[in-house]
Amino acid sequence: MGHSTNVSGDGPVRNAADEVSRIVEQTKELQDSATSLISRTSEEEAALRQRALALRSNIKMLRSFIASSLKKGNLDPKYAAKMIEELTRVNFTLNEGDAAAFLPCKSHGRFLRMLLGPINVRANRKDVQLKVKEEYNNFRDTTAYLFLLFPSLLLMLRSYMWNGCFPALPVQLYQAWLLFLYAGLSFRENILRVNGSDIRPWWIYHHYCAMTMALISLTWEIEKEPNCAQKQKGIQLFLKWAIMQGIAMLLQNRYQRQRLYTRIALGKARRMDVVWGETAGVEGQLWFLCPMLFVLQVFEGYVGVLLLKTAIFGVISEWQVVTCGVLLITMAIGNFANTVETLLLKSRFKAKMKKGKQTG
Amino acid sequence: MGHSTNVSGDGPVRNAADEVSRIVEQTKELQDSATSLISRTSEEEAALRQRALALRSNIKMLRSFIASSLKKGNLDPKYAAKMIEELTRVNFTLNEGDAAAFLPCKSHGRFLRMLLGPINVRANRKDVQLKVKEEYNNFRDTTAYLFLLFPSLLLMLRSYMWNGCFPALPVQLYQAWLLFLYAGLSFRENILRVNGSDIRPWWIYHHYCAMTMALISLTWEIEKEPNCAQKQKGIQLFLKWAIMQGIAMLLQNRYQRQRLYTRIALGKARRMDVVWGETAGVEGQLWFLCPMLFVLQVFEGYVGVLLLKTAIFGVISEWQVVTCGVLLITMAIGNFANTVETLLLKSRFKAKMKKGKQTG
Repeated sequence: MGHSTNVSGDGPVRNAADEVSRIVEQTKELQDSATSLISRTSEEEAALRQRALALRSNIKMLRSFIASSLKKGNLDPKYAAKMIEELTRVNFTLNEGDAAAFLPCKSHGRFLRMLLGPINVRANRKDVQLKVKEEYNNFRDTTAYLFLLFPSLLLMLRSYMWNGCFPALPVQLYQAWLLFLYAGLSFRENILRVNGSDIRPWWIYHHYCAMTMALISLTWEIEKEPNCAQKQKGIQLFLKWAIMQGIAMLLQNRYQRQRLYTRIALGKARRMDVVWGETAGVEGQLWFLCPMLFVLQVFEGYVGVLLLKTAIFGVISEWQVVTCGVLLITMAIGNFANTVETLLLKSRFKAKMKKGKQTG
Repeated sequence: MGHSTNVSGDGPVRNAADEVSRIVEQTKELQDSATSLISRTSEEEAALRQRALALRSNIKMLRSFIASSLKKGNLDPKYAAKMIEELTRVNFTLNEGDAAAFLPCKSHGRFLRMLLGPINVRANRKDVQLKVKEEYNNFRDTTAYLFLLFPSLLLMLRSYMWNGCFPALPVQLYQAWLLFLYAGLSFRENILRVNGSDIRPWWIYHHYCAMTMALISLTWEIEKEPNCAQKQKGIQLFLKWAIMQGIAMLLQNRYQRQRLYTRIALGKARRMDVVWGETAGVEGQLWFLCPMLFVLQVFEGYVGVLLLKTAIFGVISEWQVVTCGVLLITMAIGNFANTVETLLLKSRFKAKMKKGKQTG
């Protein structure tokens, strides 16, 4: 084939040119469809958001109306209770169902805003949200095993290889891992909160404290001292506490996972009733888990007090010791208060349910 | 009003009961609309995704067909170049326009997956993506000022208050800030990548190196030495380098911001042409910015070599010195290679454009 044939354009050239213009056309069409889908979806979403917000404020108004009528004696308490229960269920559907995806997003919080910028981390679809939760549980599982492994390894090596004194590097590697780990937990739990999880804010603050402590521990010189055994007693206790914490995490994960499965199963069956059955089937484990958690919290506080004591009675006067001591005590108290509050809420809820069954 | 009136249910009670059932009804309707919107949208999105993927593979096939025809001599080169240009434009529209939102998501990368879990950080709407980019620029601006301020403050205090020797804590606070800062940059740039930014992967690896270095610096004992001036020479140079880096960042930000504004302006005018005008109007600044960047890179490498020298010639033999030295040299080389590559790409692109204008 000569050159002139190609320029005049028949055969493969003609075909290619046709194909190019076809593709250009199709791309334009696709582009238009995409633009229209995006604008249509955002309009419909805005409309649903309006309806959801209106319903939410109506529920609120009605609730306060019922409460005030009850006070004035205009309403039979039994009747009022029934209405309130109905409204609670409706409110739950609104906040947990598909419509929740269109309600204005919960605030992302300073931590996410500072590190991630203004990106939205909320998943619109319920199955994606559950996947995020599931993956978070897996992350916690892996974490728990490492939480057992690393400190055990350090303590073993100390006894059998390092003649009773930790070298700095392995401990610092462990602290760097803790920093990374607690950062991951903080991110994931903040993201879960944005996605509608009712996780207590304290647990996230706890991770911030733990991150600060890991960072401070990195700057702490534990080597090159004549009395390393004295200086490293705090670290030794901390590692023992970490092993216990690892065991507690494994148990907690099992408990949380079963709660989630119950939730998914119930959610599939009848979404409205999810909240009522949430703790079904895991009561037994709670009685084993709670004492363990309390022992851990006391032990954590004890390590903190011990650190403060060494700092005050002058064996070591580094600021790291004091700060870590204060942080450990803060975390122990916060954990204790929040565990107790959760238990109280659970038992109050259970009592209410029982009462409801008897009267209903 | 007596008790019986309420139970029989008229007046406010009747109204409240009506209102409750109305709300229940409305919630059910809203719930149904939400479910249907979500499923409808995801179906339409899937259809668009199919179309976009098909187009993408067609473009690829056609391109290779044109290339092979060209090789065989079946196609006039001028004609082929025109078709290739057309296909490039179409491909750009597909990857940058509204349809891009429905293409399968770019991989989130290990860093985001490890720390955030499986959450999707891609914004579907173009205006949100631009907002993320804009906020990233603001973050970099603030950062640049702090990058100037902190090391200047440390160096000033060293001369006027600390008698030529840094105490550990302020330097460690500065290193902790660097760790936080580079983590933020890593997150934001990874997120920008997922949202279609063409940022070179090296700059993200650079931040990982910088994070590692900040973490290592935290464990480095710089105090309590007889010859602190000798030991702290590396830190002093590093701080001076940081001040220069701050100035370079300010200039870079100005350049990047103007590029973004040009992009937005052109994108509004004619989206298909965005890529062709990207560097318009900022050429002048580049001639000032580049020598500055090269000087910085050489200086960074010099600090690294100096650290290695102190470690090898035995003044200080801590592992931190060696590792920081190696990291600094790695970063200097990587930065240099990537800056040169970017410049080459830009000039090649410009030459192509000129040629295109002459022949077209």
